[in-house]
Amino acid sequence: MSKVAVLGAGSWGGTALAMVLSDNHHDVRLWTHNSEQKARMEIDGKNSKYLPNVTLPETLRIYDDLALAIDEVESIVIVVPTKAIRETCQKLNKVLKQKVIIVHGSKGIEPSTHFRISEMIKEEMFSELCDDVVVLSGPSHAEEVSVKHPTTVTAASLNNHSAIYTQDLFMNDYFRVYTSSDIIGVELGGALKNIIALGAGISDGLGYGDNAKAALITRGGLAEITRLAAIKGANPLTFIGLSGVGDLIVTCTSVHSRNWRAGNLLGQGQAIDDVLDQMGMIVEGISTTEAVNQMAQTYNVSMPITAGIYDVIFQRKTPKEVVDDLMTRNRTNEIDDISLLLKRNMD
Amino acid sequence: MSKVAVLGAGSWGGTALAMVLSDNHHDVRLWTHNSEQKARMEIDGKNSKYLPNVTLPETLRIYDDLALAIDEVESIVIVVPTKAIRETCQKLNKVLKQKVIIVHGSKGIEPSTHFRISEMIKEEMFSELCDDVVVLSGPSHAEEVSVKHPTTVTAASLNNHSAIYTQDLFMNDYFRVYTSSDIIGVELGGALKNIIALGAGISDGLGYGDNAKAALITRGGLAEITRLAAIKGANPLTFIGLSGVGDLIVTCTSVHSRNWRAGNLLGQGQAIDDVLDQMGMIVEGISTTEAVNQMAQTYNVSMPITAGIYDVIFQRKTPKEVVDDLMTRNRTNEIDDISLLLKRNMD
Repeated sequence: MSKVAVLGAGSWGGTALAMVLSDNHHDVRLWTHNSEQKARMEIDGKNSKYLPNVTLPETLRIYDDLALAIDEVESIVIVVPTKAIRETCQKLNKVLKQKVIIVHGSKGIEPSTHFRISEMIKEEMFSELCDDVVVLSGPSHAEEVSVKHPTTVTAASLNNHSAIYTQDLFMNDYFRVYTSSDIIGVELGGALKNIIALGAGISDGLGYGDNAKAALITRGGLAEITRLAAIKGANPLTFIGLSGVGDLIVTCTSVHSRNWRAGNLLGQGQAIDDVLDQMGMIVEGISTTEAVNQMAQTYNVSMPITAGIYDVIFQRKTPKEVVDDLMTRNRTNEIDDISLLLKRNMD
Repeated sequence: MSKVAVLGAGSWGGTALAMVLSDNHHDVRLWTHNSEQKARMEIDGKNSKYLPNVTLPETLRIYDDLALAIDEVESIVIVVPTKAIRETCQKLNKVLKQKVIIVHGSKGIEPSTHFRISEMIKEEMFSELCDDVVVLSGPSHAEEVSVKHPTTVTAASLNNHSAIYTQDLFMNDYFRVYTSSDIIGVELGGALKNIIALGAGISDGLGYGDNAKAALITRGGLAEITRLAAIKGANPLTFIGLSGVGDLIVTCTSVHSRNWRAGNLLGQGQAIDDVLDQMGMIVEGISTTEAVNQMAQTYNVSMPITAGIYDVIFQRKTPKEVVDDLMTRNRTNEIDDISLLLKRNMD
């Protein structure tokens, strides 16, 4: 049994992951900055806003006071939006007294720095308080985890001990955790898949079929992500795994994905501002598209599908125009370019 | 413009591929061994049994006489079930007068020999009649190709000229063809994905969700297939491509897939004999599961998910038992084993 705090009370962190940890008999403390949400959850016995049909474990304690929530914990699970990561770390620096392992389950890239989440956390946290940072990522709808449907994810860290520690913390008979040392690949896979989910939504919104969507996921989601990620130091094989193709499949074929839904509206011809008005919440893929399109230029990596999605969102190009352009590009060999990167990467 | 014969009048070969070739202004001859089907197609102007809503191109000529169909053609596209491949080649040997390139679009493994389709074709065809064999494979529902929705596929051959020849033959603004030299990987991807489609159906039939299905596709469809295929000489990177993950996505997330449907009935608790009675047509994945389960033993490759699906089909193990077993296996690192194979393969 371990003392662990979960920061962020959305559906994924605050409910699904906290439930897994409670099922594993850990002493789990869920923190939300929102006192009203804390009270609501305590009265309802559920996280009504995000997962209204799921009863919270009785052993789960809910806090709005961060110092109390993290008192004497061994590890902290951070699941907040990308833009709230730095602020959360700054708060932790003020109240933490012990050194902890930080596990995060967020998926994004910081637009201004192009940092991954773990880079942001490492930059913010005082080194005497942060033993290591681990990312937990994979194909995992919170709705399904919370009803104990079989789910698999990857825990990645540069330090193998931290990855195994996280595996021990979360693994049980319905939540299977694999370890990986490729934190770069796992984080980039989780973040960049949201771009492709936007694209899958656009394709579906245009009325195109599964063939087109599979092409987008495969050529965009894998070939392009792999190209960029390999240059950033990721192992291309990570993208065959759960945090690559696994997460892509779940995100791109589910109508529950916010990014897919935003793309779907774009594909139906709506302008980005109207789409965002309708969504009424953060669509991480949009800022990720902007960041990655810049990264592709910086590193001189060919990412035509990402560029096409960028053009639809930010240049008001019509989706049909973009898809037709993509279909009539020059002929290429399918794996030559990835092979080349891989060889370079493995030397 | 090229003279080309298409053998097999199902939805994929006989309608979708013949329509693409006709759109590209080739002289296309479609052959079926079934005279009644030929007559029906000529009267209806469509392939009513398989794609009832699609009008055939007026320029498409239909034959039941193989000698006439293949007279003076440069290339022959074979799209028949795995078990009809050898017989089709034997018939060709009798009537062909010229040397041709053979392109095939079939997906299976011969149970008795564990041969891929191109190996069967090469073994049967007289060498003076067969210039080369190319496989055309990828995420491509015939229904969508026939209404010109964007589709991408891979043309693979050991001989780059033949792959490019095939690319030229088929490529147009809605049907994008990539080339590859990894015929082993492309053929194994197409065949083995049917096992995983059975598994995806089983998981859905059990009432499990997208997380479980994504795990099956990723850990089964990619990790296992890649392990076996690398030992057989395939490039593991092929499975990041269209004929790997691309085809897997389309097959496993579509209720149109026969293999998915058969798996779905198994997952609901029906016995295999009842399932086959209800399907009333060939489910390639079943014989492929048997063949691949044997191959895994022969080559000593760990394929627990394939073995589990084999147990459900042939050993009457309950699907739930199998899934629960898979979820509680020993803990592993996600990519260590694939990395190892890859390094060995690239040396």
